[in-house]
Amino acid sequence: MLSANELDRVCVVLVRARNPSNIGAVARAMHDFGFSRLRVVNQFPVPLAAAKSAVDASDVMTAATSYSSIAEAIADCTLVVGTTAVGERNLQHELLPLAEATPKLQAELRRGDAGAKGRVALLFGSEKTGLSNDELSHCNWLLTVPMYEHDDMRHPSMNLGQAAAVCLYELVREAAPSDKAAANETRYAWGQHAIAEPATAAQLELLTSLLTEVMEATEYTRRHAHNCDPAQIRRLVRRIGADAIDAPVWIGILRQVLWKLGLPPEDRHSASGN
Amino acid sequence: MLSANELDRVCVVLVRARNPSNIGAVARAMHDFGFSRLRVVNQFPVPLAAAKSAVDASDVMTAATSYSSIAEAIADCTLVVGTTAVGERNLQHELLPLAEATPKLQAELRRGDAGAKGRVALLFGSEKTGLSNDELSHCNWLLTVPMYEHDDMRHPSMNLGQAAAVCLYELVREAAPSDKAAANETRYAWGQHAIAEPATAAQLELLTSLLTEVMEATEYTRRHAHNCDPAQIRRLVRRIGADAIDAPVWIGILRQVLWKLGLPPEDRHSASGN
Repeated sequence: MLSANELDRVCVVLVRARNPSNIGAVARAMHDFGFSRLRVVNQFPVPLAAAKSAVDASDVMTAATSYSSIAEAIADCTLVVGTTAVGERNLQHELLPLAEATPKLQAELRRGDAGAKGRVALLFGSEKTGLSNDELSHCNWLLTVPMYEHDDMRHPSMNLGQAAAVCLYELVREAAPSDKAAANETRYAWGQHAIAEPATAAQLELLTSLLTEVMEATEYTRRHAHNCDPAQIRRLVRRIGADAIDAPVWIGILRQVLWKLGLPPEDRHSASGN
Repeated sequence: MLSANELDRVCVVLVRARNPSNIGAVARAMHDFGFSRLRVVNQFPVPLAAAKSAVDASDVMTAATSYSSIAEAIADCTLVVGTTAVGERNLQHELLPLAEATPKLQAELRRGDAGAKGRVALLFGSEKTGLSNDELSHCNWLLTVPMYEHDDMRHPSMNLGQAAAVCLYELVREAAPSDKAAANETRYAWGQHAIAEPATAAQLELLTSLLTEVMEATEYTRRHAHNCDPAQIRRLVRRIGADAIDAPVWIGILRQVLWKLGLPPEDRHSASGN
């Protein structure tokens, strides 16, 4: 089981959910297992409004918040994990089965207990298509609920409410025996930071846009176009796993490169660099 | 993981399910996790007929069988386990949380492998009332999915499709160590996604020296001298944890920056960039 604080640091993010009753089902599973932060990303807020007006709308649904972009919905999160049914897609991310993914999620939440930020976003895609590659690019890594491979070769996918129920069940299924995973995640090994505060998704997004600018300004994008799809760049930055101390250093270095290349600083966002 | 034979010896028994779409949701979860025997107990067979006529009725639904009493539905089973949300009821049975119940279910299924019958029935009650005491009396013992106890004192209960999904997920969640051969028989997809090879120390060292050059060429070292101790830069690069695929990309980006700044390429090492 997770502590009340840990439960509170899990955000379930539904991206392009179409069916209000599915949103309601996710909210119910969250309530059942003690989670409360539901965030819904839709270009039009209709599904959430409809779901909120459902008769049995729970406290989770009432408190749910609506966003028009993934970046906004996860801005305060330090670990962003996408769920996928795998299928035919050629995934560009590290992928873990749910039972192996969970200790890593718990470690991030526990890191929060030690005073660091440690807020986890768990992304679920639309019922029909799941998360697109562009949406997946916001994720640090992916998890999947292993399903049976039937002979008919049709790729299985779970119902949204059931997938959420299974993932949340696994998160609270048992207390991790000790803190080994968490210890591995912290930085004692390098002797650099006592507790590594993870970077927020907002910092990583700024890093991504600065890196993109550098790649364009230096003509890297022209010479290596195959590496420069926006989702590829976003994934590249997510994979570096920068923490709250390193992220501003990288941001500062990229700003300095742009400055040296004669690009005006006012183009750049003012969020804390170095 | 369960073997194909073990999967085949699990019967999911829905007692007085009212809503055809809930029956469909249970069938879908069964299909997702490789189970196939769905039995529906109703005094009137209406819900099953309605569920079977649904557009996306799966093979599980098509093969589902209908009974008018629990006794008939479980006649060939050797272990009958009821699911309950507990609530206020004064239970007369042994009750186990799902994670503790599962090894007992698996042991019964495995006994079947040795030639004994070993067929397990997992009973779910109606959406509204769960299993009645009379219905529970058919069970050897009970299991429950532990849920969060909210302050409002209302007893939580899970959605039928979600409860089934969680229970079936737990049943196939992991192979018992003794059961490796059997697990190989069945196929759960989470893909053969290789976890990336780590970058070599040589690649990281090249990355470090290129980054150092960029920091100097852009005057970052002058403005942020406190970040620029060689050991600090080396640690910064080690912390990004680049793998063998990403490292050449970062090397390529840094080379491009240096090229754009007009620094001669012959200064740079020839080790594989991108």
